Order: sequence, then C-alpha cells, then structure tokens
Amino acid sequence: VTQTSVARGEHASGSGVPERGNAVRLIVTGKDRPGIVAAVSGLLNDWRANIISLDQYSTDSSEGTFFQRTVFHLSDFGACRPALEDSLEREIGTRLGLEWRLTDSADRKRVAIFASKSDHCLLDLLWRQRRGELEMDVAMVISNHSDLADDVRQFNVPFIHVPVEGDKKEAEREHLRLLKGNVDLVVLARYMQILSDEFLGSVGVPVINIHHSFLPAFIGAGPYAKAKERGVKLIGATAHYVTKDLDEGPIIEQDVVRVTHSETAADLARRGADVERQVLARAVAWHCEDRVLRNGATTVVFR
Amino acid sequence: VTQTSVARGEHASGSGVPERGNAVRLIVTGKDRPGIVAAVSGLLNDWRANIISLDQYSTDSSEGTFFQRTVFHLSDFGACRPALEDSLEREIGTRLGLEWRLTDSADRKRVAIFASKSDHCLLDLLWRQRRGELEMDVAMVISNHSDLADDVRQFNVPFIHVPVEGDKKEAEREHLRLLKGNVDLVVLARYMQILSDEFLGSVGVPVINIHHSFLPAFIGAGPYAKAKERGVKLIGATAHYVTKDLDEGPIIEQDVVRVTHSETAADLARRGADVERQVLARAVAWHCEDRVLRNGATTVVFR
Amino acid sequence: VTQTSVARGEHASGSGVPERGNAVRLIVTGKDRPGIVAAVSGLLNDWRANIISLDQYSTDSSEGTFFQRTVFHLSDFGACRPALEDSLEREIGTRLGLEWRLTDSADRKRVAIFASKSDHCLLDLLWRQRRGELEMDVAMVISNHSDLADDVRQFNVPFIHVPVEGDKKEAEREHLRLLKGNVDLVVLARYMQILSDEFLGSVGVPVINIHHSFLPAFIGAGPYAKAKERGVKLIGATAHYVTKDLDEGPIIEQDVVRVTHSETAADLARRGADVERQVLARAVAWHCEDRVLRNGATTVVFR
Amino acid sequence: VTQTSVARGEHASGSGVPERGNAVRLIVTGKDRPGIVAAVSGLLNDWRANIISLDQYSTDSSEGTFFQRTVFHLSDFGACRPALEDSLEREIGTRLGLEWRLTDSADRKRVAIFASKSDHCLLDLLWRQRRGELEMDVAMVISNHSDLADDVRQFNVPFIHVPVEGDKKEAEREHLRLLKGNVDLVVLARYMQILSDEFLGSVGVPVINIHHSFLPAFIGAGPYAKAKERGVKLIGATAHYVTKDLDEGPIIEQDVVRVTHSETAADLARRGADVERQVLARAVAWHCEDRVLRNGATTVVFR
Repeated sequence: VTQTSVARGEHASGSGVPERGNAVRLIVTGKDRPGIVAAVSGLLNDWRANIISLDQYSTDSSEGTFFQRTVFHLSDFGACRPALEDSLEREIGTRLGLEWRLTDSADRKRVAIFASKSDHCLLDLLWRQRRGELEMDVAMVISNHSDLADDVRQFNVPFIHVPVEGDKKEAEREHLRLLKGNVDLVVLARYMQILSDEFLGSVGVPVINIHHSFLPAFIGAGPYAKAKERGVKLIGATAHYVTKDLDEGPIIEQDVVRVTHSETAADLARRGADVERQVLARAVAWHCEDRVLRNGATTVVFR
Repeated sequence: VTQTSVARGEHASGSGVPERGNAVRLIVTGKDRPGIVAAVSGLLNDWRANIISLDQYSTDSSEGTFFQRTVFHLSDFGACRPALEDSLEREIGTRLGLEWRLTDSADRKRVAIFASKSDHCLLDLLWRQRRGELEMDVAMVISNHSDLADDVRQFNVPFIHVPVEGDKKEAEREHLRLLKGNVDLVVLARYMQILSDEFLGSVGVPVINIHHSFLPAFIGAGPYAKAKERGVKLIGATAHYVTKDLDEGPIIEQDVVRVTHSETAADLARRGADVERQVLARAVAWHCEDRVLRNGATTVVFR
Repeated sequence: VTQTSVARGEHASGSGVPERGNAVRLIVTGKDRPGIVAAVSGLLNDWRANIISLDQYSTDSSEGTFFQRTVFHLSDFGACRPALEDSLEREIGTRLGLEWRLTDSADRKRVAIFASKSDHCLLDLLWRQRRGELEMDVAMVISNHSDLADDVRQFNVPFIHVPVEGDKKEAEREHLRLLKGNVDLVVLARYMQILSDEFLGSVGVPVINIHHSFLPAFIGAGPYAKAKERGVKLIGATAHYVTKDLDEGPIIEQDVVRVTHSETAADLARRGADVERQVLARAVAWHCEDRVLRNGATTVVFR
Repeated sequence: VTQTSVARGEHASGSGVPERGNAVRLIVTGKDRPGIVAAVSGLLNDWRANIISLDQYSTDSSEGTFFQRTVFHLSDFGACRPALEDSLEREIGTRLGLEWRLTDSADRKRVAIFASKSDHCLLDLLWRQRRGELEMDVAMVISNHSDLADDVRQFNVPFIHVPVEGDKKEAEREHLRLLKGNVDLVVLARYMQILSDEFLGSVGVPVINIHHSFLPAFIGAGPYAKAKERGVKLIGATAHYVTKDLDEGPIIEQDVVRVTHSETAADLARRGADVERQVLARAVAWHCEDRVLRNGATTVVFR
C-alpha cells in the first residue's frame, strides 16, 4: 500500500498541482538537548514567520541525535533571508551547536536521471514531473544506450548518450563534466552500470538508486531470478542513497507486491517494475521536498 | 497490494513479453452438473490438446452456475478449429446444455479508449500496451477534448477528437460509426461523459469504466471531495463493466491507498490517480485474457 | 497493511512493554493563528519540560482550525501540575483563545467493553491489554449474552451480563449505573444492539464502535451479505466514534482485505473478523494515547 | 494485505464454520505429460465423484513437474475408498507414473505446537482452532518453559513442559516419544530452540516454523534488531517448512508491515508479532487443507 502524507498548505486545493508559494523549509540536526523546539519556533515567531508544518525526531530521549523539519511562510522571504540566516547561525548554529539549512520550495531541485534501456522508472519520473507531482526540474537524462532518446525528448528534456565501453573512467569523466554545477541530485532509474568510488567522491550531490529487490534480500545482480529460486511470496523494490558499498546505502523507501508459485522470473520482473517505479517516485518526491534526512546508515523520513 | 497471478506457459521467460504461441482458451458456463470437468478435459484430450491451465468455479455445489476457463495448446489449431468447434457444440453445448466460446490468444482484442483531459489512465494503458503487458491492440483513442492528441499519436495510435456539446446524441452517433466492427472492447479511461442507454444498447461490445472511488462508497460525481468530507482513512478505485445503472455495473477489480487527515481533496485526487491507473490496467489485462466472466451483477475473475 | 507509528521515548526498548514514565501530553485545539507552536513550546521550555514529540495540523493555512499534540517529560510533574495548568490557561486558553487539556500517560484510561456473542474483537483487546500494548485498564465487560463470561474472567476482568429484552431502556439504565464515574471510554466490540440517543446523551464518555464494512459502503445490518451480493473485491472494517447518526460518526481507522468471487458471505465474515479486530485495536490504542482529535464529522489522528 | 481464497463448497454458508462433509482431496504430482487432467477427471467421473475444485500447475509446459489438487464429493467414500485407491494406483500411479495421495477432509490433522515464552502465535492458533478456522486438532502443546501452561489448558489442550537444559538430546528424545504416532504435523510457534538434524530425521512429519523476518533478509537470531540497524521501511514474517538448513526451508507464506524511523527494535518486535501470527495461521491452515505442495526448495500453494 502506497503512502505519502502531505502537510497542510504545501498543496493547493483545486488544481492538483502543488502550490508552495513562499514556503520555506528549515532543517535542523545535531545532538539532542532540551529546548530546541522552543528555540526554533521562538526564533521563527520573532521573524513573524507562520509555521505550517513541524516534524521532529530524536534517536533517544537523552544523548540522542535530533532531527527537525519546519515549514513556514514568511512574507518577503527573499529580502530578509540573509538576516534570517544570520539569526539562525547565531541561535541554532552557535548557541545550540546544531547544523541547519534553509531551502526555499521555489528553488526546485535540478535533477539528472541516469537510465539504460528500461523505460519504466524513467518515464514515470518524467511524467510525474510534467504533472507537477515532483518538486524538481529534469536538467538532463544520461544513458549508456540511445534507445530512449525519443521518449525523453518528447518531454522537452535533453537526452545525452554517453556510451560506456572498455575503460568506463572516460564515460565517468564526461558524466562529471555534464553534472558539475548543473544538478542538485542524481537519480539512477535502473541504470545498469556500477558507479566508481571516484565518481561518487567527485559528484558532490546525493545519488538515489532503485534496487529491484526488498533489500537486504537479494543484494547484487539478478534479484528476480534469485527470488524465483528461493520461492519468496512477495517481491519488492528499494530506493536508497548510493554509497561506496553496493546496495548498502541508507534506505529511503521500500514496497512489495504479492506473487505466486506460478509466476516465472520474467513475470516477477514485469510485476516488480510497477513497484520499482512507485518506490522510486516516492523517494525522489520526498528527497526533493527535503523530507529525507540521513542518519548514519539509515534515514529519517518526515512524511 | 497489487496482485496478478499468471498461469504457466502463458508468459515466456527472458523477454518480459507474453508469448502465447498457439494458446487457445475455452470458456464454458452454465448450469452446474457433475462431469463437466471430465467431459471438457476428455474432449480436449481426444483432440490431443495439451491443457496448460484450468480454472473452474461453481456458485453452489448443487444447482449452482458453473464457470470454467481452460487454456490449452493444440498444434495446427487453425486447421482443426472448425471440427473442434463442432465437437464442442455437440458435447458441451447440446449434450451438457452449456454455453462455450473459444478464443485464440493470437487474436488480440481490438480496443477503443475514451478519455477527456486526464492523462494518467490513458497513458498508462498505452505504455503498458507498448511494453507488451496487455493482450490488445489500441485501434483508436476518442476524446471530447483535443488536449491529449500529441501524447496519443506519439504511440502511433489514432486520436479522434469528437466534441460533445449541446445534444450529445450527435457525438454518440459518431462514436458508433467509429466503433462499429472495429473494436472488441471500449475502455473509459476517466472519460467524463455519461453514456446513454441507447449507446450502450447499440455498441455491441463490453465497456469497462474506472470509477475513482471504492464502490459502492461515493457513487456519482466528486468522490474525492466526498471522501475528504466523510473523513475516510483509505481511498480507492473500481474498474467495472458499464451497465445502464450508473456505477452499478459488475466490479472487475478494486484497490485502495491509505490517506491521512492532512491531505486535501486535491491530494486525494492525485494519490488516487495512481490507484486508478493500476486498477484499470489490471481489469483491462484480465478482460483481454478472457479471465473475467460475468455472473449476474458480479464477476468471476480467474487470475 | 497495518500501521502504527510511535514517537520517540514513548516506548522503552528491550521489554516490548510501553514504558511511559512521566510522559505528559498536551492537546491544544482551536482557531489557527500564527505563533501557537512557539507559544506552546516556549511555555513548556520555561517550565523546563523536555518535549519528546510534537504533532500539529491546521485545516487551512489561514482561518483554519488548529490541532496540536505535544508529549513532554517534566520532573516532578505531580507537584507542579496545578501551577502548570494555571500557566496554560493564562497563555493558551485566555491569551490565544484555544482549548487545551493535559493528560498524564500514567493515568490509564478506564474502559468498558460491550460485546454480544462474537469473541474476536473482545478477546483481542483483552489479550493486547494483558500484553501491555494498550494504555488502558479494562474496568468491565458488559454483554447482553452470557456466552463469553468464562473467557473474560480468565483475564481477571469483571463480566456483567445485562440481558436486553423487551424494553431496552431498562438495560440502558443499568448500563449507565455501571458506567457512571467508572470509565473514560466505552468500546463496542461487535455489540449487536443499537444505543439510544438518550444513552449516548447521558454516558458522558466517548464511545468507539467497530463496523464490519468499509464505511460509507454497506451502512447498517448485514454488510458481508451486501458485499457478497455487490461483488466487491475488497472487504473492510471501520472503527468510529458513535454519534446519534448510525454509522455516520467520525472515522478513526479503516482497513481492508482482498477477497475473491469464490468466497461465500460466511467466508467474508470470517475473513473480515481478522480485519475488524486489528482496526478496532488500533483505534482504541490511539484513542487511549490521546492521538485522536475530533474535527467535526472527521478525526485528526496523530500517529 | 491478507489473502486466502477458498474454493466453492469447502465452506458452508451461514455458520462461519467450514463444513467439509465428505469432501475428499486428491493430490497428484510428478513429471508433466499431456492428458493428466483428463485422466484424473475421467477416472473420478467414472466413480461418479462430483469435482468441486481443481487446481493444477506445471513448472514448464514441456518437461516440467506437474502438481494437481482436486477436491470432490463421493457418496459412500468410506466404503469404496479401497477400490478407488486401486483405480488410482493403476491409472495414475502405474500408467502415468505419477505420485498421488488421497485425504479425507474429515480426517483432521493432529498437530503438536511447540512454544517457549511468547504467547502470540500459540494463542492465535488455539483460538482459531476453537473457532473452527483450522482443519486440525491440537494434540498437545510442548514448551521448554512452563509460563503458558494455564493459557493452553484453558483451551482443553494438554500442555507438556519439557525443559531443555544442558544436553538437549535428552529433551529431543522425550519430544520424539511424545510425538511418535500421535501427530501429523509439528508447528513451531516461536519456539526458541534449534531442532537437531537427528530430530528432524526422526520426527517423520512435516515441521512448520515462523521466522520473524522477511526471509531471506535477516536470517538467524535477532532479526528485528538487524532490521532496525539496517533501517528497512517494512518488516515481515515468513512461515516455512523446517529443513536441516536453518531458515532455508521452503517458504509457505510471507507478509510485511510498514514501519518508520521512529520505531525502536522493541516496537518492531511488537508490530511484527501481529504479522507473525497471521502468517503462521495462514500457513498452518493451508497445510492442513493440503493446499501446500513441496517443489524442491520452494512450495506450490493452491489457495
């Protein structure tokens, strides 16, 4: 069962298109201590900001790590942003010793999508973006195959074919030239190449991957064949941040679908494709709305 | 949680595209009596057919209505079809008093899709058809608006704009001219017009509709607004055959998604769209594979 | 798919038994205006309370109704409660014009469960209570039949048989005598009698009912038979507060389960029983943890 | 979402209690070849049996392994059983080279349940058995602790305390003495002891275990702690036949529930308990109705 919960004010009624106006998001993380919620909300109140959503979580009621996401409206945010940031650094950064960042929902994430030959995750993201379901702009699609060029360009999105042959370092250098400064997020939409540690060390933005199994079950290649062989009764998909350890990155979202003995590995792959595209779309949506905070090898997701 | 179960042999391994070769389906319905399964399988065995799937159901172990779907392989089916049909009529039709029909999976259903301005159900069907997930050919898309013309034609499918203004009988006459003899199924993919009884009486093929609620809750217009007002915790979608009674036709498939108090009616509509397209795709897939048998105001679905 | 989310600190690790220590909950509701979150968290901070969970929701970012649930730890709460309540009344009640209430998680809700002959919802509640999953004490079980007496008493819970025959006013008067001052909540665990408006007007505590359908589908008696007749593909259950309009009270929780054409109405009843007991248990758990706030004909559920 | 599909005739309407009268089940397995369905149904028809349910599956349309479960009514089955078995051995065993077995639904499986200190799976099985949901009789409950004795005996089921200390071979010898000839199935309802290969080699009946994770994720001890550490978004449970390879036996049923970052490992354990008891109950129900056929390291489940 799919789930996305949406805080008040972040979606307009009537149009079906998220209207985020001048909604601003403040993310605060760090060592938990009493008084953080009061300090943050007090500071925002002093600025006459109207808090429209506040989520917080601490890993432990004492000595834990604290996470807070606050969404607020503030008239004339553009003009007063520098001074607000000074306040935040003084009160939240210096005094409370916490990390914080401010994002304007009007500054949509710029995203590069990597794909190979499978179209289901890629097209679903492009289509949801066009519908206004995702707070992002697709800067480019990069693929090691040219098969999906027409499908992508029909959405008025640049398609760049970067073949990966022999020494893949050459392709990765081209990837970095394309991405550098141009994107805030890389999404691997069933991109069938493993990214090198060098690439991950250089790319400078988060990378989200969709793995076609319910991790940690069936790590690595061929999960549907492995699922068939093991005789599982549910198959799944996992969206996670990519780290240097293959399929070990922090999990953002997962879901499953029921299967039976009578389905072949190919049937599982076809059935799983539906789960993959939904799970990836939710993970990307939440990331773009700054709902996903890294907590070591796991994530906090404020939905 | 989504479910489609697939009988053996009906999907090839490796390609992800259903390979149905010379699979033939025999549908038998009528008054239950002992010996039907034996009679049908015996007859097919005499013809040296290889049964690869058999589902049956009776509404009651005595005096019930019987439904059976048998899939078999038969070499040279084309040549021996007339003689086989004679056998079936003699043994199953006349002797046992049952209705039967034979369909060749190679004879894909020809489908007309009706749409208005919403693209989610329409594009999902076209995309799944292109992927080979649906045993159908899309003969045409008919819409009372022209908005989706480019999207449809990009799939190499004819898009016909039939405005519905003032007297809608004129539009319906054009619909009938377009459909007559050309299609085996009409699918209403969020088509925002009510079909007249005359149209339904004349169209001569089944019509499948997707309703954007979990019927029988929220019959009629504006189900998401009604769902928000009633404060339900799940919203759903229902695919059903269209009959003269609005939203009362036999249900083929339903599914739901969890929602919370914080979602607006517009959020529900957006969330529900995902359920709608999945439910409709499953209903159309099953219909095209002759898995859905009408049983009065309900359906038998052999999945 | 079941869901209960638990805020930090409210459940201890290790024992599997919720340890709520001196957790205190503050519920604030009323006309939304800027500054409420800051005022509440500032006040609690002044009292050196440690906020461990905060959920809020407004029906509209302007002119809406505001709901907030804050959980905090406060040393020596018992001693300072009166003074804290004075502060709250002054700052939240008078100055901001909001309603508020304070509950100590150590003050477990006292509950009366009404049942008839079906044991599934009743026994599940008693068993979960014994396991420590529910923040409540079961003061008594009242039934119009004596069938379940032994099952109930085995849990060391009083079982009171109040036959309902002829004029049911007499029974209701006895109910009120039993309940008055003794309970904080009445749970109808498949109690097969309709409560009169007089009773509801007099009982003075919330009443939660489990209805054996996905409301608003199949209102009234015999929902499983109606579901079979309509041919739905999912059946459900709904927990709701009881109001004078039968099956129209604010919905707390719902869930569904997939069924097929081959299941009889009796099968649906049996399958549905599992959904009923889960849905009711979740609704009761949330109510007892003050997670459910009434919002007109609907509920806000902070999970 | 839970699923159990029930074939016609196997459950009576009205009572909620399965009425299986003289329903007989024939299980046929072996090397697939054309004509099996016709041979079996023809033979049963010759005996004037009334087939009320027939499920079959082959792992491959050529050279595959074939599985069929047929349920039929046959008047005076007791008297003609020997002669019918002769027919089956001649036609199905000898002529077609298949294995077959016949079970009378009136011969309920005799089951021993092993438990330790956790009551949730055990009590749910006992309660469902009492309700008539499970086609089994509970011959005994065996536990290495005495904690659950009263709960068990309240269901009029013998509770046998067999401590497992030091050399566990002694306990296993006592287990074998208790079980030998007395049971058709052993169910491990969160029994926290590993069975030795010698025991499994000697027990002579199938053993079903519930593992508290979605296998193959989190094999071995402490799956909820591992799930918390890995940060998965769903937790699950798996019912499987026990083989000599720990947690590697053929899977009968699995299900999952959504969790969030805010739940502790203890919360996951509590939430998972609900999934465990449902998954185990379904697996046991299906096994007792002869719906589960072993296929190497996997199962075929005819639901």
